[in-house]
Amino acid sequence: MARRALGPATLAAVRAVESSLDPSDGCLLVACSGGPDSLALARAVVTVGARRTLPIAAVVVDHGLQQFSADRATETATTLTTLGFGDVTVRTVTVRSTGAGPEADARLARYRALDEAAATRDATLLLGHTRDDQAETVLLGLARGSGTRSLAGMALRSGPGARRLRPFLALPRSVTEQVCRENDLVWWSDPYNTDPGYARVRVRQTVLPTLERELGPGIAEALARTAVLARDDADLLDALAAEADPGTSTLACQVVEGLPPALGRRLLGRWLRLEHGAPDLNAGHLYAVEALVTDWHGQAGVDLPGGLRVRRTDGRLELVRPDR
Amino acid sequence: MARRALGPATLAAVRAVESSLDPSDGCLLVACSGGPDSLALARAVVTVGARRTLPIAAVVVDHGLQQFSADRATETATTLTTLGFGDVTVRTVTVRSTGAGPEADARLARYRALDEAAATRDATLLLGHTRDDQAETVLLGLARGSGTRSLAGMALRSGPGARRLRPFLALPRSVTEQVCRENDLVWWSDPYNTDPGYARVRVRQTVLPTLERELGPGIAEALARTAVLARDDADLLDALAAEADPGTSTLACQVVEGLPPALGRRLLGRWLRLEHGAPDLNAGHLYAVEALVTDWHGQAGVDLPGGLRVRRTDGRLELVRPDR
Repeated sequence: MARRALGPATLAAVRAVESSLDPSDGCLLVACSGGPDSLALARAVVTVGARRTLPIAAVVVDHGLQQFSADRATETATTLTTLGFGDVTVRTVTVRSTGAGPEADARLARYRALDEAAATRDATLLLGHTRDDQAETVLLGLARGSGTRSLAGMALRSGPGARRLRPFLALPRSVTEQVCRENDLVWWSDPYNTDPGYARVRVRQTVLPTLERELGPGIAEALARTAVLARDDADLLDALAAEADPGTSTLACQVVEGLPPALGRRLLGRWLRLEHGAPDLNAGHLYAVEALVTDWHGQAGVDLPGGLRVRRTDGRLELVRPDR
Repeated sequence: MARRALGPATLAAVRAVESSLDPSDGCLLVACSGGPDSLALARAVVTVGARRTLPIAAVVVDHGLQQFSADRATETATTLTTLGFGDVTVRTVTVRSTGAGPEADARLARYRALDEAAATRDATLLLGHTRDDQAETVLLGLARGSGTRSLAGMALRSGPGARRLRPFLALPRSVTEQVCRENDLVWWSDPYNTDPGYARVRVRQTVLPTLERELGPGIAEALARTAVLARDDADLLDALAAEADPGTSTLACQVVEGLPPALGRRLLGRWLRLEHGAPDLNAGHLYAVEALVTDWHGQAGVDLPGGLRVRRTDGRLELVRPDR
């Protein structure tokens, strides 16, 4: 591959990977589904690994959910070997139902396998999410209406040990397809990616094209920029709320009232998460709990998932398990 | 009017006005276009004024831009008198071209007249913007991609002396139309409100319905909630950036670099606005100036509107007027 001059899209992809790397990055492990984004990422990583003399590897996850998924995984592995990867692993995962829906369940199983593969090699896990994926994530977050953090999209680095890296977050999806064409890579189209039963697919196929048409091109870029700005804002505000946290098991309303609303609200969210431990609190729960402080008129309390209730007693919030 | 029992929508509108008032509010001056939102607001204010024994007044702006606009203003004034307003003024304004576009020019002229009318009476100026207007504003801000402040929509209180009050920001537009029907009020439909030449009209007619259909009902509510949360976040972050501002006419890059990104970026924006004085800086300008600090590699400088350039010299940013 290296003998041929790089096409313009491939060059852009290589630059995106290079500029995302830290000196701490050693082995570059590409998560490849066989779709255009992760194939383009794999292609770019081959060049970057050679230029920087970094070891490269690839992992293909077989969810075992679709017919011929094992065949597809094997084909993708073959493509990766042809591209120049000496270390290619296919990981077959078992998707267990957690009640969060099939999309979330598959995601959980996939990331567990990918993070393990990265940890085993002490590698950075490179993921092919593009600017369009980021725009979709921001719109889905916007629809939840839970504020700045929900608009922060995906981070450049994240996950256990900050091993996950998404070098293509500013790269349009059209570029990854062009990378594949420049390198004669045949990509696989996941039928899930066109199933309108998924909110993300409806965002991709209908919502974003409508926004582009009605509000002008550049909406995906604007959304990706919003994610960067929102993430920095949310990170700082969360850190300030953590500083303001008295760390008590019941929370004095006075402490919340003494903070600017942006911090008081976050302190409440933080206290609920730490005390309640449940990740499934939505904006409605937070709003109702906030009203116990900011609009107190003797409410009975706020019921949360898991049979718990937040109650206000003598100016303090406490979590109780009401009698049934 | 007061003799008839209030319908459910009228009751909701009255409650929205009542809960938005502060003890400092005296005379309630309604800005009325003759459309359903401001007519419903006027109707609610009649009841609130009577209950709270507050003086009420109404002002109708005639932009003189459309045929028969004077007739319409007179008709609206008559409706307001019938509703129970003793003090109704029609203000004819002259829309001057500022280069910002006809929509912005009309807005500028309208608010100048409305703010003056409020200041003259020492009144609170009540505006009929609904939850749907707020949702549209948030989406238009999102399309700009300039971060948390651009998602903050309209404030409950704003304007010179914080005299402007928008009691209906959490009330769906469908409720205001229902208020008109409950009170046999015939509203006027502004042809501008259906002209797809305006981005706001395209958001109303196409973008929001698409979002509702594809991401489920409740999107307007989620967007309005986003506005409240984003406003609180942006207010706090702006205040923190103001505290961090050394107030010098050239800005040391070290000061910016020593701050969290969310504050460093705001300090740059603040310095540019205060030193440059121009309101027409966009996200692209800010990004380029930020790169002079965070991605310095000897750039020539960043050109801004008005023939000014930001230059980095000896680790400080300065505004210069380059030789031509």
